[in-house]
Amino acid sequence: VSNAAESKQIGVGLIGHGTVGRGVVALLHEHADQYARHLGRSLQIARVLVRDPAKHREDSLLAPELFTDDSAAFFATEGIGVVVEVAGGRDPVGAYVREALTRGCPVVTANKSLLAAEGEALFALARARETCIGFEASCAGGIPVVNAIQFALKSSRIAGLYGILNGTCNYILTGMTQRGETYGDCLAQAQNAGFAEADPTLDVSGRDAAEKLAILATLAFGVRVDVNTVACEGIDNLALDDIRFGAELGYDVKLVAVAERLKPSEGAPGDNLALSVRPCFVSKHDPLANVHGSFNALMVDGGPVGPTMYIGHGAGQMPTAGAVVSDLLNVVAGWYGDAYRRFAAWPDQMADAAPAPAEEVRSRFYLRIAARDVPSVFARISGVLGEAGISLGALRQHEVAEGRFVPVVIVTHEAREGDLHRALAKITALDETEGTPVCIRIMDSVED
Amino acid sequence: VSNAAESKQIGVGLIGHGTVGRGVVALLHEHADQYARHLGRSLQIARVLVRDPAKHREDSLLAPELFTDDSAAFFATEGIGVVVEVAGGRDPVGAYVREALTRGCPVVTANKSLLAAEGEALFALARARETCIGFEASCAGGIPVVNAIQFALKSSRIAGLYGILNGTCNYILTGMTQRGETYGDCLAQAQNAGFAEADPTLDVSGRDAAEKLAILATLAFGVRVDVNTVACEGIDNLALDDIRFGAELGYDVKLVAVAERLKPSEGAPGDNLALSVRPCFVSKHDPLANVHGSFNALMVDGGPVGPTMYIGHGAGQMPTAGAVVSDLLNVVAGWYGDAYRRFAAWPDQMADAAPAPAEEVRSRFYLRIAARDVPSVFARISGVLGEAGISLGALRQHEVAEGRFVPVVIVTHEAREGDLHRALAKITALDETEGTPVCIRIMDSVED
Repeated sequence: VSNAAESKQIGVGLIGHGTVGRGVVALLHEHADQYARHLGRSLQIARVLVRDPAKHREDSLLAPELFTDDSAAFFATEGIGVVVEVAGGRDPVGAYVREALTRGCPVVTANKSLLAAEGEALFALARARETCIGFEASCAGGIPVVNAIQFALKSSRIAGLYGILNGTCNYILTGMTQRGETYGDCLAQAQNAGFAEADPTLDVSGRDAAEKLAILATLAFGVRVDVNTVACEGIDNLALDDIRFGAELGYDVKLVAVAERLKPSEGAPGDNLALSVRPCFVSKHDPLANVHGSFNALMVDGGPVGPTMYIGHGAGQMPTAGAVVSDLLNVVAGWYGDAYRRFAAWPDQMADAAPAPAEEVRSRFYLRIAARDVPSVFARISGVLGEAGISLGALRQHEVAEGRFVPVVIVTHEAREGDLHRALAKITALDETEGTPVCIRIMDSVED
Repeated sequence: VSNAAESKQIGVGLIGHGTVGRGVVALLHEHADQYARHLGRSLQIARVLVRDPAKHREDSLLAPELFTDDSAAFFATEGIGVVVEVAGGRDPVGAYVREALTRGCPVVTANKSLLAAEGEALFALARARETCIGFEASCAGGIPVVNAIQFALKSSRIAGLYGILNGTCNYILTGMTQRGETYGDCLAQAQNAGFAEADPTLDVSGRDAAEKLAILATLAFGVRVDVNTVACEGIDNLALDDIRFGAELGYDVKLVAVAERLKPSEGAPGDNLALSVRPCFVSKHDPLANVHGSFNALMVDGGPVGPTMYIGHGAGQMPTAGAVVSDLLNVVAGWYGDAYRRFAAWPDQMADAAPAPAEEVRSRFYLRIAARDVPSVFARISGVLGEAGISLGALRQHEVAEGRFVPVVIVTHEAREGDLHRALAKITALDETEGTPVCIRIMDSVED
């Protein structure tokens, strides 16, 4: 390696090599070129600090000698320009984070409990040492809510935060709502599916959501928030009757974390924050009601700027690792590089997009076909679709006044659009049909 | 003003003073202290370039002498450190933007049509002059999608974008879906409500959404995208029958802008992009289906990192002005300041949050009351609530097996929680009721 290339490297010191840590390593490995292009320098994992190096040395993406349990050796490693902490817990990790910051080294962390407990001191230390802490991954995992509040909504005087911040509770409530099963049954299912701990107290009591709310409210409102001032009510006392009655009225139940400024007219002096986590009803037509399963969401009421909502995976290996790495890239770009300029797009240096032939798109489709002769048309249509390799989901005949063509509605399973259009041409040509079938793509966007 | 304070000012050159421009002025005025704290320096509007200064000199927030129609005088104004362009159109605005960039001055712009037509040259100029262009407001207004794709999702190899990017179309489709009215009727209503132009072609043809998709796809996939390669199908041919039949199958229709990488297995060489704007069905349980009225949304399929979705106002004075000002703050912080450090939160320098008394929260509530004697209980309960100033929305009695208490479900209008709890205590004490009423907050998050 030449000296010139050497100087273009940034060494990453990684603390922790569990689920999220391995995700970070995988992303840095898989997208090395993309990140190097973005930063104008490459990221190299320089050392990994773990409790038991022997347990981790089989990781094929990292050389065995990178692992160490010796924090002094870790911090003495040459070329570490940024520390990524994904070990979790407060002890001994808090001391490592303090050590990195004291050395003026930027830290990226996913450690919510550390920040909730010691964040104030750590941020003050970062400022004193003229360095920074990236913590996007500490709140709502793969949803970039920290980024949105800190950067994108900077112009607003935020009026309120409304969040579904605990995937375990949302998974359980989705089960109770959609299948009408009891809290106990749904909790057991969540535990079997890996969405709930053996002791679910931290989640179902609302405490976990309250901790995230405290961090987000600090960012949004610019005041210190003590998590113990959040009024917490869990989901373990919810009656199925209320979920059912609410549904009849058009509501779904969600555990909603709320931080809202009270308007002066409500009797309190200005800028008082109402902080709560409790089961709430949300209109079925509200995007918040349609955040299902383990998904998380945050609605930010931005005052005059209006509401914005952010939905995604709040936890899990790759969502969290992705947030850690995005933070890492931003910290490195801002810290060692050309800062804002690096974030801009330079289309004149890009390749042209290679347009894909539309017929290669795969999707489910809705078809409406005007049928002349219903008994025979079903067999003919399904025959044509079957020849094209397209299988059917729903099929419905709609009633019409006598003498008109009968609309037949079909929902296909996933099909190649080119195959579908060839089949539709054949269907159009059938004696049993009239006119050109209507074809509408069915969009399956977010899946559980 | 002392010299020290003077040096802490950044002059803003504003081009355009229409709806969005006045919104920018209002935000800079209203939140001047908040922005100055954030930046460590204050923003001052140094000059405003408009076509007809006489028309604008009555603006009470700006001194009349700030307005000019002389671009040479505008650019000669001392202290302009950043240019904000909210005039729109390509001529003469394109020349002004080039002039600012040529001078090395960062530009923040909301001008989608300028960027769509000349973006490549403008970004190249910015790079050559070592300056930058902020353009968050050019796509989807108040939803920080540019920020999310550029910063927060940087770790991902994005697999697809799925957006509701045109508020006019979404407003019309929402009307057709919810009220079963024809395209023509809903278009007329959109025009009356100010959500559609007299000539709606640009919107209803899908072209406007295609332009935004082209910009976002360039960012997401890092390739030049020609807007003319986007397959466009508008909403003007949609039949009400298909909306109805789709609804029976569980779908809502949306105009969806799609940019997706085709998987190699689908026959095309890697990295080909399928780009389309067309009416699609979306499951009613999908958050995308629940983006109503003039709201916009973008779903980003981030590959292994998972999907994230962003919802908000895609247009309008304050959403757009808010995006412009957030961009301005980020550009100034990154450009003239301490870059990344400035974005961090410093809780040790914050005040403590002033907790609001929970009883001051105002909301709608769901109540379930076990009633002993139904005919008389209605009067008693509504009497107690009325005394507390709480009015009723829905009221339902549910059937039960004989001998049990009858559950009465009530939905209140907005009420002060303290008033409600006092009323509930009285209701609990009534002879006609049994046990403690269940009380669940109804969360109205995003409103049309």
